[in-house]
Amino acid sequence: MKYRRIPDETVRRLPVYLRGLLFTSKQGERNISSQNLADLVGVNAFQIRKDFSYFGDFGTRGVGYDVEKLAAKIKKILKLDIAQKAALVGVGNLGSALLAYHGFATYGFDIAVAFDADPRKVGRKIKNVVIENISYLRTLKRKKITLGIIAVPHQAAQVTADKLVKAGIRGILNFSPCSITVPKKVKVITIDIAMDLARLPYYMPAN
Amino acid sequence: MKYRRIPDETVRRLPVYLRGLLFTSKQGERNISSQNLADLVGVNAFQIRKDFSYFGDFGTRGVGYDVEKLAAKIKKILKLDIAQKAALVGVGNLGSALLAYHGFATYGFDIAVAFDADPRKVGRKIKNVVIENISYLRTLKRKKITLGIIAVPHQAAQVTADKLVKAGIRGILNFSPCSITVPKKVKVITIDIAMDLARLPYYMPAN
Repeated sequence: MKYRRIPDETVRRLPVYLRGLLFTSKQGERNISSQNLADLVGVNAFQIRKDFSYFGDFGTRGVGYDVEKLAAKIKKILKLDIAQKAALVGVGNLGSALLAYHGFATYGFDIAVAFDADPRKVGRKIKNVVIENISYLRTLKRKKITLGIIAVPHQAAQVTADKLVKAGIRGILNFSPCSITVPKKVKVITIDIAMDLARLPYYMPAN
Repeated sequence: MKYRRIPDETVRRLPVYLRGLLFTSKQGERNISSQNLADLVGVNAFQIRKDFSYFGDFGTRGVGYDVEKLAAKIKKILKLDIAQKAALVGVGNLGSALLAYHGFATYGFDIAVAFDADPRKVGRKIKNVVIENISYLRTLKRKKITLGIIAVPHQAAQVTADKLVKAGIRGILNFSPCSITVPKKVKVITIDIAMDLARLPYYMPAN
C-alpha cells in the first residue's frame, strides 16, 4: 500500500505513538481510544486522529484502534519492521552511555559496532561490543551497516561524518552540539539534549 | 503582557526556534523571514507563523521577524530570561557527559551541583562541579535550586525523583528509560534518546 506523503511533524510524533502503543500492548490491552492514547503520550486526540489519517487508519467507533495492528503499521512506515544495525563512533562518556542504553532495542535497533580514535580504548568490550580502531570504519560497507551515531568531541564531528558517508552510511544521529554538512542523500538528525531541558521552566510554577 | 495559553506542541517547538534565532543572531543577521527560519529549523513556515501568533508576533511584511526581539520574547515565555540552576543526580557515563556538555549554557542553564551514591565518586570534580553525596540532596531547598536531572540506573529513578521532590525540585529532566510518578505540581520530561533514532530509517533511501 502506498501512503500519502507524511509531514515531518507527523513523522516526529510516530515514534512517540509507537512507544505508547508498545506500552499499552505490554499492559495487555488490545484496543485504545485516541483519547486514552492522547493522555498517555501527551499529544491531543484531534492531532492523533489527524496524524493516523495520513496512513488511512481511522480506528473503529466505540472500540478505538487495534493496538498491535497500529504498532505494526507505524513500525512499517518508519522502516523499523526490519532490525536496524547501527555503528557508534566515539566511546567517551556519552558513547559508553549509549552502548549501555537498553532503549534502542524497543525500536529494533542494535549498536552492532563501535569505533574510537584512542588506542587505549580499542579492544575493550562494552555490552558485547568490542571497540575497534576508527580506521576500520570502511568495513561498514561490507557489513551493510547504514546507520551511524556520532558521539565524538565537536571538533571531530564533521570529519567523522565525512568518513561515515564514505563508508556508505545513509542516516546519522549526531550528538555533537554542532551542525554537520553531508550530501543530500544522507539524512542527519542532530540531538540537542539541552533543548528538552529548555521546555521545563515554562511548566514550573513560580514559588 | 498576558499571552493566550500556548499549546504544548508549540511550547515543544519554541526551543527549536530559539536555537535557530540564536544561530541567526550569531551570523550577524538582524531580521529573518518565516521561510528562512523554516529552512533553518525544519518546521514549515505556516506552522511557524501560527506558533508566533500565540504571543502576538506577526513580523513585518517584507522585513520578517526582528531576530533579537523574537529571541528575547521566546526566552521570556520559556522563563529562560533568568539563569536557571540545575542539580544532576547520577554521575555515571551519561551524567558525566551531561556535566561536560556545553549546550546547556545556550539556554541559560547551569548544572550547579551533582550528586552520586557511590562514595568513590564523592569529592571528585568535573567541570568545576564537585560531586556530593546523595544524602545532601536536601540542601537544594536552601540553595533555591528547583530543576533536577535524573541520570541514575532505572531501578533508582523513582526513589531519586521522590527525594528531589522532597528537596523542593519543581521540574525534572529524566534520562532513565522509565516513567516516574510525581505530584501534580512537579513537571517531568522523560528523554528517550532511542526515539530520535527511530525517525532516521524513514528518511533513508533504500539501497
